[in-house]
Amino acid sequence: MRANKGIDLNKDRLAAFSDGVLAIIITIMVLELKVPHGADWAALSALLPIFLSYTLSFIYVAIYWNNHHHLLHTVKHVNGAILWANNNLLFWLSLVPFATAWAGETHFAREPTILYGFALLMPAISFTILTTAIVRTHPNEPTLAKALGRDAKGKVSMALYIGGIALAFVHPSVAYTCYGLVALIWLVPDRRIERELKHE
Amino acid sequence: MRANKGIDLNKDRLAAFSDGVLAIIITIMVLELKVPHGADWAALSALLPIFLSYTLSFIYVAIYWNNHHHLLHTVKHVNGAILWANNNLLFWLSLVPFATAWAGETHFAREPTILYGFALLMPAISFTILTTAIVRTHPNEPTLAKALGRDAKGKVSMALYIGGIALAFVHPSVAYTCYGLVALIWLVPDRRIERELKHE
Amino acid sequence: MRANKGIDLNKDRLAAFSDGVLAIIITIMVLELKVPHGADWAALSALLPIFLSYTLSFIYVAIYWNNHHHLLHTVKHVNGAILWANNNLLFWLSLVPFATAWAGETHFAREPTILYGFALLMPAISFTILTTAIVRTHPNEPTLAKALGRDAKGKVSMALYIGGIALAFVHPSVAYTCYGLVALIWLVPDRRIERELKHE
Amino acid sequence: MRANKGIDLNKDRLAAFSDGVLAIIITIMVLELKVPHGADWAALSALLPIFLSYTLSFIYVAIYWNNHHHLLHTVKHVNGAILWANNNLLFWLSLVPFATAWAGETHFAREPTILYGFALLMPAISFTILTTAIVRTHPNEPTLAKALGRDAKGKVSMALYIGGIALAFVHPSVAYTCYGLVALIWLVPDRRIERELKHE
Repeated sequence: MRANKGIDLNKDRLAAFSDGVLAIIITIMVLELKVPHGADWAALSALLPIFLSYTLSFIYVAIYWNNHHHLLHTVKHVNGAILWANNNLLFWLSLVPFATAWAGETHFAREPTILYGFALLMPAISFTILTTAIVRTHPNEPTLAKALGRDAKGKVSMALYIGGIALAFVHPSVAYTCYGLVALIWLVPDRRIERELKHE
Repeated sequence: MRANKGIDLNKDRLAAFSDGVLAIIITIMVLELKVPHGADWAALSALLPIFLSYTLSFIYVAIYWNNHHHLLHTVKHVNGAILWANNNLLFWLSLVPFATAWAGETHFAREPTILYGFALLMPAISFTILTTAIVRTHPNEPTLAKALGRDAKGKVSMALYIGGIALAFVHPSVAYTCYGLVALIWLVPDRRIERELKHE
Repeated sequence: MRANKGIDLNKDRLAAFSDGVLAIIITIMVLELKVPHGADWAALSALLPIFLSYTLSFIYVAIYWNNHHHLLHTVKHVNGAILWANNNLLFWLSLVPFATAWAGETHFAREPTILYGFALLMPAISFTILTTAIVRTHPNEPTLAKALGRDAKGKVSMALYIGGIALAFVHPSVAYTCYGLVALIWLVPDRRIERELKHE
Repeated sequence: MRANKGIDLNKDRLAAFSDGVLAIIITIMVLELKVPHGADWAALSALLPIFLSYTLSFIYVAIYWNNHHHLLHTVKHVNGAILWANNNLLFWLSLVPFATAWAGETHFAREPTILYGFALLMPAISFTILTTAIVRTHPNEPTLAKALGRDAKGKVSMALYIGGIALAFVHPSVAYTCYGLVALIWLVPDRRIERELKHE
């Protein structure tokens, strides 16, 4: 058994399992859009808040999938620390559908808005932990450490989530403005890695 | 890290994630077939409209999977624009189960019929956007642009969906005739690409 | 684009999509095991018929996955006929969880038992159609045609399903005996293909 | 058709199907976290036992995924015995969400606690059966047999599950202490295989 092949399998299965979990998370959220009993537009429009929260969360999970995808590009060796940092990220992402549904069904009340911010903050922290685990596993690749090192976008995101949670006490709409800003700054995929790799 | 390998991974994960989401979308629709309380044929036959709408939507999602599969054949480079055009397509397809269930449970009433047409129109538009993103990313492949360029079937589909939505005001059955025509013209997989590739 | 690579992608995505759908079908059946309200063994034992029907259907879907897996080994070229024969098989398999749940929740009453037999018969017919589509696509491989040609097990299965459906009018337990016999004859994976391949 | 290629496909599809089923099992457990009707923290805190049981079971299924991943590294030939030993493992793992939900919703009453222990014991036994099937299929690889042979962790796990089930009659909390110990001893991925492979 060639060590090299083993490592590729590791990475492929890590990607495959993550893809599976992310695909399911992103799709089960739509199950909260329960079919209305009436057959008119009024019955449909009652679902608007749930649709809005679904759309926002779809974008977040898609951002995580895109960034996860870019991050795994940089991985050459998978070890236990990376596996569990990845499982930790998937765990917190798996709670996003619940927080999404609670926020949507309560029409974005204060407490569900705070929980939603928390449900977005925890995957952000977990993504940073996963990045750190990957950098530590590849000590001889300064390019990678440099590319991921500063992580300005990650730090701004976490600050915006924490700010949003605090500002939910003023009004939930202020919190959603903060959360929405995070989506905006991440909608562009992680060009840091792309740029550094081009210099190789 | 060889650029070439990175691109393959990109494409493979894009396909894997899309396969996962499409597999889940196509399968969760069947959850709307709720088990009847009675144990006789009358209890079962009450589910006939939901079964019909499930069958129609299964065919649509399978068509998208087949065409997506053919389209990705043509892709050599995956970039942010393609990733997000693909996510956009998956988002609209993820709403098909909801529209399917609403149409089936209201026995194909007018408003759900209009929404169903809209739920089919949006993935059609999104597929065109994805095709455009792919063509733009491969400027040096005139074969691809030529193969996808005219896209007569895509344009006819969109016209039929819009026509169906308008004709739902006459009678829902006219709308479903239009929608069904789209399924018919797409049931043959996209031979345009196959044909052009054979000339290479 | 090398034709060869395209064909591999075709086959890989066909397998990946089928794996995804089969994995979801096999797993959503367990959702019918609804958590009982009581916390004692009596509450649990009320679920026994649903557990039994789940177990039987798990075995059937696992048999299809195993045989599908062996069948795809033989495929070298994927075309539209194979894609749609495969989608047709997945469609009928996607209805197995519904028939399973109806049979279990009605404690194996006559009509649900007949539907369950029908829900097992249709994938069997579809598997034969898929096999035929594959043989026709590979006209220059007499080994494959010979290996799949007689298909004694497939014919016996269909006879047993039809017999079971008819005998459900005597008593549902006779029908389940027939259905169970089919599971038994298929539990051994398809050695026909394995045997022929060894002779190559 | 090269035998070698066939074997790789076998192994890849076995991994892909298992990944799919495990990804769905781990994710549908979160569906038991039903959205509360209220919008305050009291409504949320009522879900705490279900959240706790979800977290514990997420860790168990993740451990199985990690160990399954390591175990498949060692596989060179997939045969019917391995396929069915794997299906058997997936079957028992598919029942974990049910047992998790029953334990959480009954606030860890005695009978659900015993069932939960049983639902964890059966995959442990099944994993041992799968390991044995793999070792038997690879008779010429003493390294593998040696690496997996003693399986001290597996035996201790089974003893802890059986002990936990027995001690549930004293108090459920004693049972969960036993179950939790198993998670602790497995959180480190299976270094036995890693170590032996390095000596090759």
